[in-house]
Amino acid sequence: MFNKGSLTNSGLKRAGSSSLLSMESLENFYGKEAFECPSLDKDKNFVFSKSKPFDLIELEQLLQAVGWSRRPLRRVKRALDHSMLIVGLWKHDPKFPRLVGFARCTGDGILEATIWDVAIHPVYQGSGLGKKLMEYVIKSIKEMGIKRITLFADPGVISFYKSQGWILEPKGNRCAFWYSN
Amino acid sequence: MFNKGSLTNSGLKRAGSSSLLSMESLENFYGKEAFECPSLDKDKNFVFSKSKPFDLIELEQLLQAVGWSRRPLRRVKRALDHSMLIVGLWKHDPKFPRLVGFARCTGDGILEATIWDVAIHPVYQGSGLGKKLMEYVIKSIKEMGIKRITLFADPGVISFYKSQGWILEPKGNRCAFWYSN
Repeated sequence: MFNKGSLTNSGLKRAGSSSLLSMESLENFYGKEAFECPSLDKDKNFVFSKSKPFDLIELEQLLQAVGWSRRPLRRVKRALDHSMLIVGLWKHDPKFPRLVGFARCTGDGILEATIWDVAIHPVYQGSGLGKKLMEYVIKSIKEMGIKRITLFADPGVISFYKSQGWILEPKGNRCAFWYSN
Repeated sequence: MFNKGSLTNSGLKRAGSSSLLSMESLENFYGKEAFECPSLDKDKNFVFSKSKPFDLIELEQLLQAVGWSRRPLRRVKRALDHSMLIVGLWKHDPKFPRLVGFARCTGDGILEATIWDVAIHPVYQGSGLGKKLMEYVIKSIKEMGIKRITLFADPGVISFYKSQGWILEPKGNRCAFWYSN
């Protein structure tokens, strides 16, 4: 599914408009194991990266654009530093790549992995980027040898995850939250 | 609730049978921030520790005693090394302290914490140790400044967590699992 070779057959490479990044410039711009995502909109190139550094203010603007509450940047930075995996989805621009998607994962690196903060900017929703983001995240987690991944899904996105093969409360497991007072 | 001073009023200290560990020997045996748990059985001393090293085989025997499937020790060791918090509950013995309870936590150390592998050996269940274990774990997580804790509860232990103030699927959140194939 992540075979880069298939991109050349997807019609992305069109004369006069967008062009695919070379492997070299992909790595230069976005770090190792970056992946250029096939997009429905042929004029835009989107790239997943798990190593390109984030501008924390841009990240928080993205998360607020999808309706999440503001969090202190200092805490966000520490959370990112201690996450097992952080993935950015970038709308490619050689000068100003723009962060349009995000997901991160906590865990122990071998037995348990839990996905948090999955977001696609509202402007770019509805074109399959969320599905591709999850595929990239899952692939990255699987490469660590992890066999079970968990997440907590808001009611509005349950159908999104179900359609991708996620099982809700398998074997009657329940999730529980505890809030500090 | 974790005020050690209250222990001296609990009747634990009885002539001729068990005696409370001094603060010094508690730290010597079980590391910093170890906590001696008041027990219903006055002849047994139980101690929580987040720094005493585990014998991996003893830990796996405990987890199998509560009915969990066997996991390769190499993977377990790596999971422990990358957990945010690991807590052991020990039946005190100056020569052979015995591991009778366990819990661990993954997370980012500041925003998210997820509790896994909560276990009390069947022989020691029913005397409130599980509740005390969770209190110790939650206290330790709160001290990191984390305001939200999550866990996945099997159907058989939902009432256990509910009685301690855990909220199942607050705001309609759902948990989801994904298994590698």
